[in-house]
Amino acid sequence: MNILVVYAHPEPRSLNGSLKDFMVRHLERAGHRVQVSDLYAMNWKASLDANDSLERHGGERFYPSLESKHAFENDLQSDDIVREQEKLRWADAVILQFPLWWFSMPAILKGWVERVYAYGLAYGVGEHSDARWGERYGEGRFAGKRAMLVVTTGGWESHYSARGINGPIDDLLFPIQHGILYYPGFDVLPPFVVYRTSRVDEAKYAELSATLGRRLDDLWNTAPIAFRPQNSGAYAIPALTLRDDLAPDQTGFAAHLEEAAELATRP
Amino acid sequence: MNILVVYAHPEPRSLNGSLKDFMVRHLERAGHRVQVSDLYAMNWKASLDANDSLERHGGERFYPSLESKHAFENDLQSDDIVREQEKLRWADAVILQFPLWWFSMPAILKGWVERVYAYGLAYGVGEHSDARWGERYGEGRFAGKRAMLVVTTGGWESHYSARGINGPIDDLLFPIQHGILYYPGFDVLPPFVVYRTSRVDEAKYAELSATLGRRLDDLWNTAPIAFRPQNSGAYAIPALTLRDDLAPDQTGFAAHLEEAAELATRP
Repeated sequence: MNILVVYAHPEPRSLNGSLKDFMVRHLERAGHRVQVSDLYAMNWKASLDANDSLERHGGERFYPSLESKHAFENDLQSDDIVREQEKLRWADAVILQFPLWWFSMPAILKGWVERVYAYGLAYGVGEHSDARWGERYGEGRFAGKRAMLVVTTGGWESHYSARGINGPIDDLLFPIQHGILYYPGFDVLPPFVVYRTSRVDEAKYAELSATLGRRLDDLWNTAPIAFRPQNSGAYAIPALTLRDDLAPDQTGFAAHLEEAAELATRP
Repeated sequence: MNILVVYAHPEPRSLNGSLKDFMVRHLERAGHRVQVSDLYAMNWKASLDANDSLERHGGERFYPSLESKHAFENDLQSDDIVREQEKLRWADAVILQFPLWWFSMPAILKGWVERVYAYGLAYGVGEHSDARWGERYGEGRFAGKRAMLVVTTGGWESHYSARGINGPIDDLLFPIQHGILYYPGFDVLPPFVVYRTSRVDEAKYAELSATLGRRLDDLWNTAPIAFRPQNSGAYAIPALTLRDDLAPDQTGFAAHLEEAAELATRP
């Protein structure tokens, strides 16, 4: 299989750097092909702007999404963007690896998403009608591919637990897992999270890498997070609110997960 | 009062640009002093790296937080960072204004947070003991200052409602409002959110700016979001999980809001 690792840490000798090297070795040993987008090493341009296309389409005013659409459709995107899109097309699975900085991904990786996720590739795909609202959330160009986050954080696991002060890790990662990965069609696997990074000694590292190795071995048969597909009937269109009879008392991110009973009855 | 607007949109003639200009005029007319950090116009460096300090402290390996601490304590931060920190100290209120891109702030603004929020300024402040776990979440260097988000999004309000497919807007903004603003001590006001930006015509813009103007007039007497202070007894230390008797059946972000009954009994 083809695996793309998009990696965002400024220091190769960091815990993140070691885990990234471990992943590449482990996957290659298992016979997979691996490409790494090492964003810091590539000096990746983080800020989306009018220089992202070779030729301006619109008039004086820069509309980010319309310029992206025009550039994507007419082969006018800057080369660094095209190269990453080619890696995404090539990949059967994508791993985003990063330290959690201020409860989200580092700016350099957010800028990778903003610039590489073109209009026509990652959004603005498919027809809008009474039955469908674009191909997104379970459909889209990346349908059939898998994705997984590998995340490190200095905080304790309890700080990120169901009642921990930072908020539950699943909720903090929802805008990424649901909004960035499930949106253009990826099947999203549960994340691999390392807590309290300052306490990772040799014994702990051995344990972490063994667990991560097993996660990589199971990349193709781990059940994805059961997000609800948008166009399967679960949501009213175009309001895109969850049907009243599904998870009737729930609000918030968790409502967008299918329940075991529903999963059992899906074809 | 002194107000800092940190603004992140690449196009001055955008809806965001117009709302930013409106805010500056409105606040100045009311007698306030305003500074704007127009991140795109400033060509703000988005990616945190070893070049953010004038002199490397550690050895070969770059530890982002330790280098930040050393540079902050020894006046070795790069000038662009120092200038933003001075604006933060000067400000009585801070407004972060941005379009919601992939369910979070643009990379250029995330990079402002990562680089300006130094160790010793925005985190790593105060003692850790049995009674306190640093000065954060309600305490910290920015205590006494107010903050507010001004956010635009192309999606519909229903898509961001309690059962909307994108997740509730309050939950999507929690990592910013709680994790980035409340964490170093800001009192965070409810956000001002504009939905379905492509449908904002002249009449709608007049309505939006009138509403925003009232929000600015009320900046000093709007009740902040009632996040729970970390060191007030609500959380076990050091686990930082919410006390069992508070919001006993709740998990997730909403558990970190004080309930009306509790608020009424606070001194």
